[in-house]
Amino acid sequence: MVIQTTYAFNLEALITDLRTTLRDDQISVSETDRETHSHDWSRHTPSLPDVVVWAESTDDAATVVKLANTHRVPITAWGAGTSLEGNPIPVHQGITLSLSRMTAISAVYPADFQVTAQAGITHEALNAVLREHGLFFAPVPGANATLGGILANNASGTRTVRYGAAKDNVLAMTVVMANGEVITVGSRSVKQSSGYNLLNLIVGSEGTLGIVTEATVRLFPLEKFRSTALVSFETTQQAIDAVVGIRTRGLTPKSLEFVGETYAGILWDAVGINRKPLPTLFIEFGSFREDVLEAELEIVKAVSEGLNAQHIELTTDPEKCDELWLVRRHAYNYFQARYEGKSLYVTDVAVPISALPQMVGTIQRLMDENGIDGVVLGHAGDGNVHATMPYDDDAGFAAVKRVNAGLIATALQLGGTATGEHGVGIGKAAHMEQEHGSAVAVMRTIKQALDPNNILNPGKVFP
Amino acid sequence: MVIQTTYAFNLEALITDLRTTLRDDQISVSETDRETHSHDWSRHTPSLPDVVVWAESTDDAATVVKLANTHRVPITAWGAGTSLEGNPIPVHQGITLSLSRMTAISAVYPADFQVTAQAGITHEALNAVLREHGLFFAPVPGANATLGGILANNASGTRTVRYGAAKDNVLAMTVVMANGEVITVGSRSVKQSSGYNLLNLIVGSEGTLGIVTEATVRLFPLEKFRSTALVSFETTQQAIDAVVGIRTRGLTPKSLEFVGETYAGILWDAVGINRKPLPTLFIEFGSFREDVLEAELEIVKAVSEGLNAQHIELTTDPEKCDELWLVRRHAYNYFQARYEGKSLYVTDVAVPISALPQMVGTIQRLMDENGIDGVVLGHAGDGNVHATMPYDDDAGFAAVKRVNAGLIATALQLGGTATGEHGVGIGKAAHMEQEHGSAVAVMRTIKQALDPNNILNPGKVFP
Repeated sequence: MVIQTTYAFNLEALITDLRTTLRDDQISVSETDRETHSHDWSRHTPSLPDVVVWAESTDDAATVVKLANTHRVPITAWGAGTSLEGNPIPVHQGITLSLSRMTAISAVYPADFQVTAQAGITHEALNAVLREHGLFFAPVPGANATLGGILANNASGTRTVRYGAAKDNVLAMTVVMANGEVITVGSRSVKQSSGYNLLNLIVGSEGTLGIVTEATVRLFPLEKFRSTALVSFETTQQAIDAVVGIRTRGLTPKSLEFVGETYAGILWDAVGINRKPLPTLFIEFGSFREDVLEAELEIVKAVSEGLNAQHIELTTDPEKCDELWLVRRHAYNYFQARYEGKSLYVTDVAVPISALPQMVGTIQRLMDENGIDGVVLGHAGDGNVHATMPYDDDAGFAAVKRVNAGLIATALQLGGTATGEHGVGIGKAAHMEQEHGSAVAVMRTIKQALDPNNILNPGKVFP
Repeated sequence: MVIQTTYAFNLEALITDLRTTLRDDQISVSETDRETHSHDWSRHTPSLPDVVVWAESTDDAATVVKLANTHRVPITAWGAGTSLEGNPIPVHQGITLSLSRMTAISAVYPADFQVTAQAGITHEALNAVLREHGLFFAPVPGANATLGGILANNASGTRTVRYGAAKDNVLAMTVVMANGEVITVGSRSVKQSSGYNLLNLIVGSEGTLGIVTEATVRLFPLEKFRSTALVSFETTQQAIDAVVGIRTRGLTPKSLEFVGETYAGILWDAVGINRKPLPTLFIEFGSFREDVLEAELEIVKAVSEGLNAQHIELTTDPEKCDELWLVRRHAYNYFQARYEGKSLYVTDVAVPISALPQMVGTIQRLMDENGIDGVVLGHAGDGNVHATMPYDDDAGFAAVKRVNAGLIATALQLGGTATGEHGVGIGKAAHMEQEHGSAVAVMRTIKQALDPNNILNPGKVFP
C-alpha cells in the first residue's frame, strides 16, 4: 500500500477559505510564526509550515481540517512544541494547527477523580487548578507539554511506575477526524468494553489519525506525606535486583529512577557532594499516612542492605525530599553544563526490567566503542532507559546515530521497544519495520482507511 | 459503508482443504460438537457452526483463517464459551475455531511480573501455575474463561478497581489477521509509544479484527495478608459516598463491591443472617504487612461512621474473610435459587461513580414500573452495575428488555457506557449508535479495512 507523500495545493485559495470562518488573528503567514512552529525541542531538521492557524474551539479545528482535506493540504497539530522526536514538525509543510488557545477546563469531577479540559492546556496549568481539589493528573513529561500533546504522544514521565502512561489515564476524547468530522471516543465510565477501543488507538498516534481537541482524564488524590530513598550499589545488576525486590514486596513507589555511575558522578560534582560515583536509585513514595512511609523505607533499607548497597539515604522530611529530587530533576541541565557548547542527543528505548542491566551494559559498550562520553539514566520501574550523548560535528552525530541504532537493535532483541515515551515522530520511523514487522502494514492499512488523502501530520510514524 | 453479511460457500471443499493440513481429530461436523459450540452462557439464540476446528498452534490457526478467507467462510474463535452477550455464537455459521487445546505456558518471567501463554488456557489453570511463583493474573471474570476470551472481550471482574481490566494488563499478543497473516503487537516492555496501539485496538474487539493465539500479560505479586470490610448504609447515596471517601483518602481496595438492599436481603436470608436488608459494600484489601491492613480498616470505619453506617464488620482473619466473600461470590446462585425455574437476565452498564446512586435508583424504578423482581449488584469502585432480572415467558422477557433499554439510555445520559465488561456481542449491538454516534462509522471503516470479506465473527459488535 502506497501512502501519498507529495502535495500540490493552492495556498491562496486555502487561506481565502480559512478567512471565511476564522478571524484574522487566528491565521498567520508571518516568518516569525512559521519559524516558531517549524521545530520542536529535538535536533530534527526544522520545516516551515505555510500557514499557522489557531483553533479556539472544536468547531474551528473541524473547519480547518475539513478545508485541509478538501484542498489536500497537510495539517499538523501543535501544542507546546516540546516533543523530542520531531513529532510536530510539518515536514510536508501546509497548515500547522495550534491548539494552544484552547485551554479551558470544562469540568472538574472530584468524586469521579476526573477532569474534562481542552487540548491546549499545559499540564502545569491543569495541575495548578486540580491542586485546589486535592487531585492531580499524573502522566506528565519533564517539559510543560499540553494535554493534547501528552495524549497524541502517549507521554508518561517519571511516575508511570505507579500511575501509568497517558493511555492509562484517558477516558474520553473529542477528536477531529481527517474528513473534518468530530467524533467522541470513550466515556466517563472507567470501565468500557463497548466496541473498538478507538480511544487507545488515537492516543499515541501523534496526530496522524485524528486531532484531539478535548479530553476527560483520570486523576489521583494528592497525598499528604512523601518519602525519598537514595541508594547506590556497586553494580547495575544489584540496583535492578533492588528494583525487583522492592516491587516483589508489593511496594508501589511513585517514582523509581535509575542513574548510571558516570551520570551519578556528574550529579554529585554538580551539587558538591564528595561521594563515589555508583549506579544509583532515586525512589519516591507517597501516602496519606506517615507511618506507612516509615515502614516502606524500612523495606527499601532491608532490600538494599541485602544487595550490599554502598550508600543508603532515607528521608520523610519534605525539604530533604525536594533537595534530593532536585538533583535528579536537574540531571539534564548538569550534564549540559558539563558539555557546554556541545549538542546533546537523548535516546529512548525500553525493555523488560530484568533486561535493564544488559541494556545499560550494551549502551555503555556502544558509547565506549564509538568514543562518546555519554551517560545513562532510566525510569527503572518501567524499564525505560535514556542515554544522553554529546556531540559537536557531523562525524560526532554519525557516531551518536550508530550508537542509537545499536541500542535499539539490542532493546528489540531483549523484548523491548525502540521508544518508551518519546514516540516515533521522525526519529524512530526508520525502526518501525524492525520492531513491528508485518504489523506495520496493518497500521498503514488503518492510516489509509481513516486518512485516505494523508493530510494528518504526514511523514511521521511510517518509514 | 455496507459490510457483507451473506455467505455462500462450499462446505465440502473447505473441509477437504482443512484436511490437507490438520488431523482428523482437529475437525468435527458432529451434531454434539456443533451443538456445544452453538451457545454461550447467555440467553441469546444459539446458532450451529457448520464445522468445529481445534487449533493446536498459531500456525494451525493461521492456516484455518487463511482457508476461511479464501473460501469466504465466517470464522468465530472459541475459548470456554462463557460469554454473556452471545459474543462467540456463530450467527452466520461457518467455522468455529476452538483455541481450547492451546493451553501452554511458554514462559514465566518472575522478575518482570509477566507470563507468556497460549490463548486457550483458562485463568484458573494459569493462576494455579503462577501461584507457585507468588504471582497472579488479575483481570478475571466470575466464569473460568480462557486467556484469549478474556482479552477478546476486555474482561475485568471484581478486582478492576485496583488492577485494571484486561486491556490494562496485556503487553503483547500474537494475532492471526483476517487474511491469515500472523502479526505480533506490543512488546515485553511495560512502556510502549511505538506506533499505533494495535494491542488495545484488538483487545476487546471480540474476534472481529483478529484472533489472539498467544499473549504476554502483566502479573502482580500475591500479597500475604488480606482484610475485609462489610458495611451497610441507610441509603445507596451514603454507600457511594463511602466509596468516594475511601478512595479520596488514598486507599486502593482490591475489590469494592456494592449490593443493593433487595439483593442484600436475599443474601442474608440465604446464609441465615438476621439483619436488616440495606445497601451494602463488600471491601477487600491486600497487603504484605498486617499493620497496614489494620490501619486501612480504621479509615474505612471512620468514613463509614461519618456516613451513619448501620452495620460495620471488619476482619483480618483469613477464614472470616473467605466466609464474607463467599456470600458475595455466591450471590448469583442464591438469587437463582430464590427464583428457581425462572430465567435470569443480567445487564451490564457502567457510569461515573458519582452517578451510581442515580443509576441504581433508575434501575429500581424501571424494574418496579415493569413489574420485575430484580436485584442490583455492582463493582462500585468502577461504577459498573449489574441488574439481575428473573422472567419466565415472552411477555416477561419483553419487560426485561424494556428495562434494559431504559437503563442503558440512563447510563449513556449519565456519561457512562452500555457495557462495562460483558462486551457488545449480539446483545448490545443495537445500542452502539446510541452510545458512540458517528464513531461507529469509524469502527466500521477499520473493520472493513482489516477484514474486507467480513469473515471474522460476523454479526457482532455492529448493529
